[in-house]
Amino acid sequence: MWAALAAVGRDPDTGGYRRGGWTPTEREATHWFLDQCATRNLTVESDGIGNLVAWWGPSDAAGVVTGSHLDSVIDGGAFDGPLGVVSALAAVDLLRAEGFEPSVPIGVGAFVEEEGSRFGMPCLGSRVAAGVLPASRALALKDRSGVSLAAALETAGTDPAGVGPSPLLERMGTFVELHVEQGRGLTAPVGVASSIWPHGRYRFTFGGEANHAGTTLMEDRHDPMLTYAMTALAANKQARLAGARATFGRLSVEPNGTNAVPSQVTAWLDARAADDATLESLLAAITKQATERAERDGTTLEVVPESVSPVVDFPAGLRDRLVDVLDGAPVLPTGAGHDAGVFSAAGIPTAMLFVRNPTGISHSPAEYAEMDDCLAGVDALAAVLKDLAK
Amino acid sequence: MWAALAAVGRDPDTGGYRRGGWTPTEREATHWFLDQCATRNLTVESDGIGNLVAWWGPSDAAGVVTGSHLDSVIDGGAFDGPLGVVSALAAVDLLRAEGFEPSVPIGVGAFVEEEGSRFGMPCLGSRVAAGVLPASRALALKDRSGVSLAAALETAGTDPAGVGPSPLLERMGTFVELHVEQGRGLTAPVGVASSIWPHGRYRFTFGGEANHAGTTLMEDRHDPMLTYAMTALAANKQARLAGARATFGRLSVEPNGTNAVPSQVTAWLDARAADDATLESLLAAITKQATERAERDGTTLEVVPESVSPVVDFPAGLRDRLVDVLDGAPVLPTGAGHDAGVFSAAGIPTAMLFVRNPTGISHSPAEYAEMDDCLAGVDALAAVLKDLAK
Repeated sequence: MWAALAAVGRDPDTGGYRRGGWTPTEREATHWFLDQCATRNLTVESDGIGNLVAWWGPSDAAGVVTGSHLDSVIDGGAFDGPLGVVSALAAVDLLRAEGFEPSVPIGVGAFVEEEGSRFGMPCLGSRVAAGVLPASRALALKDRSGVSLAAALETAGTDPAGVGPSPLLERMGTFVELHVEQGRGLTAPVGVASSIWPHGRYRFTFGGEANHAGTTLMEDRHDPMLTYAMTALAANKQARLAGARATFGRLSVEPNGTNAVPSQVTAWLDARAADDATLESLLAAITKQATERAERDGTTLEVVPESVSPVVDFPAGLRDRLVDVLDGAPVLPTGAGHDAGVFSAAGIPTAMLFVRNPTGISHSPAEYAEMDDCLAGVDALAAVLKDLAK
Repeated sequence: MWAALAAVGRDPDTGGYRRGGWTPTEREATHWFLDQCATRNLTVESDGIGNLVAWWGPSDAAGVVTGSHLDSVIDGGAFDGPLGVVSALAAVDLLRAEGFEPSVPIGVGAFVEEEGSRFGMPCLGSRVAAGVLPASRALALKDRSGVSLAAALETAGTDPAGVGPSPLLERMGTFVELHVEQGRGLTAPVGVASSIWPHGRYRFTFGGEANHAGTTLMEDRHDPMLTYAMTALAANKQARLAGARATFGRLSVEPNGTNAVPSQVTAWLDARAADDATLESLLAAITKQATERAERDGTTLEVVPESVSPVVDFPAGLRDRLVDVLDGAPVLPTGAGHDAGVFSAAGIPTAMLFVRNPTGISHSPAEYAEMDDCLAGVDALAAVLKDLAK
């Protein structure tokens, strides 16, 4: 399964994956998933936005859902998402080979646009499914080419009118997501999640005055690039001071000409911290430094939160049950957002398993996990499913 | 003429012009020019890359060429380029109305891709015409979509095989370019150029390591955005210290995703100074600070000069002759590059006239000149042409 899926959407130049939601490569990965489900005689259910759950066991009852996502960040790694989907299918195979018969259904899920790499909204599929993102707002989201989600769905043959809170969640008694760890926090092959850090995406729009790069005195300029540059350095410094994370990884410059002082720089801040208060004070500190510099540069600044997810503390009872099943596996928080966080916040008992990441590198073609650790992840997931569906 | 040309290639949202070389809007402006020449019974000659000179007066002799360019920077103003072309045609009309008969031919020129906004090479047409940019290198230049100049020429119906040093220059006995001033250095309606500052475009490639924006410790990152940000601030500071200009107006970020530490930031530095030595020491100072920061960030830096034009001192004799004709018009240098600089460096006696810019704003939709000053520019150009072609 790993070898077959590894080829889908891989950029031959960078080795990274480009599987934005509803793009041909992501659709190819989805068709691969449907083929795998068909081979296993799993009953696939879909919701309006295209989230999928493939069921094994008693029908029409609530059960244990596992799985993850098949989309990727731009130039992402092979493991983030697909490891959870492939491990879920492999765990079903293991349990069947053992002759296990679940007393409640086990579902293998694939949730759409978890990374938000195309429409800018992380966990798009799970947020819509859980009803925390209204359909009208979701359908109006646009990608970088100006294509709306509604138009993308129509192109994919999906009626946008069906988008909304998902009936799939009615059968999601418990959700367990297996995922590659994305830092260097896990030294054992497999661990259990305690919490997801709060996470915000904020759009910083720096406005200035376009001008000639050769003739305009430095003193006469209102250059938003300078305000942005100082803000990027301030974000780094403030995140270090707070033991948090702050990243400017995406930029758009107007007019983006070599010999023109820019009229506008738009920059997206990704900020995360261990708790909500720290995240708020981090954003406030960055915004304060940016505003002060804007006054000095004669530029303008607008900060718009595009998405802010509060801290998710996974329920302690379920977490401890997983730790017991896994003979005392280590417990750790994560700075990465996941559909599991959305489902947990929506009141579904949710847990996560992490597979060790030896380098801590993720959202990069260099993302990696040892095959032995991945197989230990499959074993752990099978043991957890067996316990929850016994 | 001004009203007709003002509508061509104007973005209705920004009010700025988008007339990159060989784009439909730039072609439309060129066809407008050809129509104007036909109306006046001027004899148009073209060279291999598409530079045009429309002749009035005795044929087959060397004469006085004036004119400018019709292309624009991205979101540029109405005056930069077109003012020189329109004023040249208007000056011919004035001289004819007076009954003036030139003893040597007067040519009205329109030179292609002066701004370099499409293929990244300023003064592309004049550099190829003067033989300072080899045809092979010019034809291999690519625009941001990866289209080569050779391909763009073929699309425009021009055979790339004809690109090379231009026979038009054999008849260019003198060249006089009228241009809107681009700083605030001119307080009279019309002035005469002393020199063009040396000007370099340098590509700074900052390399780092893509990673997850949420899970990667700040201390573990190799984030090229930070190295770039510090370099942009350093460039501003060093330019102020040197009384020079340094601008980072164009950026490209990979993968440019909100939740990924970038793997690479490419940034273009536009740097200019009053003399070659100051420009060199400015670049050295910026590169030194960037290199030191790269060491600290664990990132890499490569600096590639894309084009460097040395200082142009226009010949004093011709300059003084213009000042005399214009009753002691002020003399001033410019930080902006021009085809006049290329022709002067190629040994053609060259001069420039500037029309006052009340705000100093250029390369911007807000670029502006008073109509009275523009008309004074036409009168001045007519007087100069009359003197040089008498």
